[in-house]
Amino acid sequence: MEQKIPYKIYLSEDEIPTAWYNLRADMKQKPAPLLNPATLKPLTADELSAVFCRELVEQELDENTKFIAIPEEIRNFYKMYRPSPVVRAYCLEKALGTPAEIYYKFEGNNTSGSHKLNSAIAQAYYAKKQGLKGVTTETGAGQWGTALSMACAYFGLDCKVYMVKCSYEQKPFRREVMRTYGASITPSPSNTTEIGRKILEEFPGTTGSLGCAISEAVEVATHSEGYRYVLGSVLNQVLLHQSVIGLEAKAALDKYGVKPDIIIGCAGGGSNLGGLIAPFMGEKLRGENDYRIIAVEPASCPSFTRGKYAYDFCDTGKICPLAKMYTLGSGFIPSASHAGGLRFHGMTSTLSELYHQGMMEAVAVEQTSVFEAATQFARVEGILPAPESSHAIRVAIDEALKCKQTGEKKKILFGLTGTGYFDLVAYEKFNNGEMGDYIPTDEDIQKGWASMPKVDL
Amino acid sequence: MEQKIPYKIYLSEDEIPTAWYNLRADMKQKPAPLLNPATLKPLTADELSAVFCRELVEQELDENTKFIAIPEEIRNFYKMYRPSPVVRAYCLEKALGTPAEIYYKFEGNNTSGSHKLNSAIAQAYYAKKQGLKGVTTETGAGQWGTALSMACAYFGLDCKVYMVKCSYEQKPFRREVMRTYGASITPSPSNTTEIGRKILEEFPGTTGSLGCAISEAVEVATHSEGYRYVLGSVLNQVLLHQSVIGLEAKAALDKYGVKPDIIIGCAGGGSNLGGLIAPFMGEKLRGENDYRIIAVEPASCPSFTRGKYAYDFCDTGKICPLAKMYTLGSGFIPSASHAGGLRFHGMTSTLSELYHQGMMEAVAVEQTSVFEAATQFARVEGILPAPESSHAIRVAIDEALKCKQTGEKKKILFGLTGTGYFDLVAYEKFNNGEMGDYIPTDEDIQKGWASMPKVDL
Repeated sequence: MEQKIPYKIYLSEDEIPTAWYNLRADMKQKPAPLLNPATLKPLTADELSAVFCRELVEQELDENTKFIAIPEEIRNFYKMYRPSPVVRAYCLEKALGTPAEIYYKFEGNNTSGSHKLNSAIAQAYYAKKQGLKGVTTETGAGQWGTALSMACAYFGLDCKVYMVKCSYEQKPFRREVMRTYGASITPSPSNTTEIGRKILEEFPGTTGSLGCAISEAVEVATHSEGYRYVLGSVLNQVLLHQSVIGLEAKAALDKYGVKPDIIIGCAGGGSNLGGLIAPFMGEKLRGENDYRIIAVEPASCPSFTRGKYAYDFCDTGKICPLAKMYTLGSGFIPSASHAGGLRFHGMTSTLSELYHQGMMEAVAVEQTSVFEAATQFARVEGILPAPESSHAIRVAIDEALKCKQTGEKKKILFGLTGTGYFDLVAYEKFNNGEMGDYIPTDEDIQKGWASMPKVDL
Repeated sequence: MEQKIPYKIYLSEDEIPTAWYNLRADMKQKPAPLLNPATLKPLTADELSAVFCRELVEQELDENTKFIAIPEEIRNFYKMYRPSPVVRAYCLEKALGTPAEIYYKFEGNNTSGSHKLNSAIAQAYYAKKQGLKGVTTETGAGQWGTALSMACAYFGLDCKVYMVKCSYEQKPFRREVMRTYGASITPSPSNTTEIGRKILEEFPGTTGSLGCAISEAVEVATHSEGYRYVLGSVLNQVLLHQSVIGLEAKAALDKYGVKPDIIIGCAGGGSNLGGLIAPFMGEKLRGENDYRIIAVEPASCPSFTRGKYAYDFCDTGKICPLAKMYTLGSGFIPSASHAGGLRFHGMTSTLSELYHQGMMEAVAVEQTSVFEAATQFARVEGILPAPESSHAIRVAIDEALKCKQTGEKKKILFGLTGTGYFDLVAYEKFNNGEMGDYIPTDEDIQKGWASMPKVDL
């Protein structure tokens, strides 16, 4: 007899994964290594350790260990907001009139409002273990900064966040959450760093950029005794930590014998998508199971669907390592879209390599259709989704509507990475009918590529 | 052998209560009835039905039926965000170094951000069942308006919210959440009602008041075909719906054999506190168990601790029924505290009667000490609490610290009614050291009482 699937599938506390899954271990063709921008040679552990915590560097470079144990202290923190539920979207299914089954893994039920906390707590833990005083980072939209502030408060670490100046001014609420958790927030560019002062001198009226904020955070980390720099996406270590999303999702679905046909996630730097799909992609790589896996990106910043696969700079300042990835060029300037977390010009190297191998698909969607999906979802499922997450909702709804036409009872799983409580300026624009779409021209993308490394790597 | 208590105790979907518990049925001395302000006689079902939905009127007047079945449609909605967890505050206990066990029932994990959704969905359901087109209501801080908007979206009901003008202007994000759920929001006073036009004529620059917004919402409900008025607190029906909080909390604690010694809840109109304590108070009334029950109110609006127990108007406009309650007088103007949900001058009649009988205690706490507790809680437990809920946190911490001195291992349960994501202006004030306390003088309270009914009831 078939078991009735509840609205929310919760695992018990004991079922929180005890190890992260390292997807690279199952890849025959590994992702290309990070290169030192000065020597164009693969970065060594020593070079990376000047910037990052030692154990995180080990995780960054380890492409062979399949499972890496999650330390007890991190699991205890996870217990405060995990396991996060897999939700059966009964109400959305009914509203769409689809025979498809729709499931979503919801990562928004914590104060950071997104999945970013999964890696923030891990990075803070290793910094504490190394005996550091604190960490530095940058934040744009503010999700990562909030998550890191929470993690640092828990372990009693100092947390210095460089927040892109225009966000600092336009998102005072995000800033206050971080301050409440004891972080110090500096609008970037600032005169607290050499590079900040230089930029302020050259461009006195600038409202900052993520690239500049990264440069300031890295400078402070490398020039301050007892500090290291941490990053919320793109890196291998982040994908590793985020595998907890997929491991829980798979365990929850397995309980009810549900094997998803399609797995959908939004993709900015790739931290959420990489985490969600990890164990499923592992099965696919090992030939045990097949899944259709879809990355959803904004049409305004289409790194998979219109980018090229090549070595590129990760930051506009060109001080960070080179990564081989699908990229629009570090000089590409995406339009002022409301999905701040999806505005990165490239894509984490692991997902780039998998996409290159044809192991996953990618779709680009336009902003207004994303907010239509967000609103439809909110009204029937009750959760106000983050703009980033709503990219996945858009494609999940589209796939469910295809099933309605064909009568197929496909099982669709998507990642609901977060809530939109700090994105109401965007919702207001949409509610007022003032939201536009923007698709870069081929010339825009050519311009972005012009900033790529001049050597052929 | 004692079972290890998890961080979060979740009931299964099947354990969501199937009936609300009507606390009045166990009270020997019932709460005093609502009176018609014109006749000073108890309001009849017919009189109430002009304003409220029929079945809700039945619930309002029913003081004898102990359990009232929760309709299937409401339980299905509950399944989207309930059962809500009882959390063991292990990290807070450790930070305080207390031998006490601290538990909290967390009602903030839904987009309305508070417990208000429990009654909103019930009231919307009965309106739909009666074949109404829509409902009207007022909102101050916005929690209730948001909850009602979500409930109406689910059932396809029109939702007209009169939002106090200063909130409408200062809390644009709350407004946009409601609009996203399809509600129409009118700043009050407005020229859409007779009473609104009258007030605007008399006081052209007014930024509105809850009393005025209530009057407008009631006028629209009673003058529009197919509309009724709904309210988020104070009424008996609301306490009934909110009993789901206490029923779940008790069932969760019972699973681990935990009997709380102290139960703590914040109290504005009384909807949360009445719901949380319901089954525990029932046992206390029936002499089966004893519990120490503490209502926490702001020192700026101390209806229990400094009010008088008498019949009073529920609204400043004096158009609503008279209720017997602990009151500061409908003319009492609380200071601009940041716990918007706790600024009501009175207290629901059921809790007032129980307090009068000595079945519960009350404590008033000052705003800055509340935000100190909120910040301490956020940093170790990870959840950014609503200012209202933080009143309960303050007293829970105080009681746990007393246990530290005495060495007692008391079990403390408190209600965490909601999250503070829309209250960051308040946190900013606190973070900047700009938050003050305000305690009304005896003269302030005398002034409030001057507006009470002139007859002795």
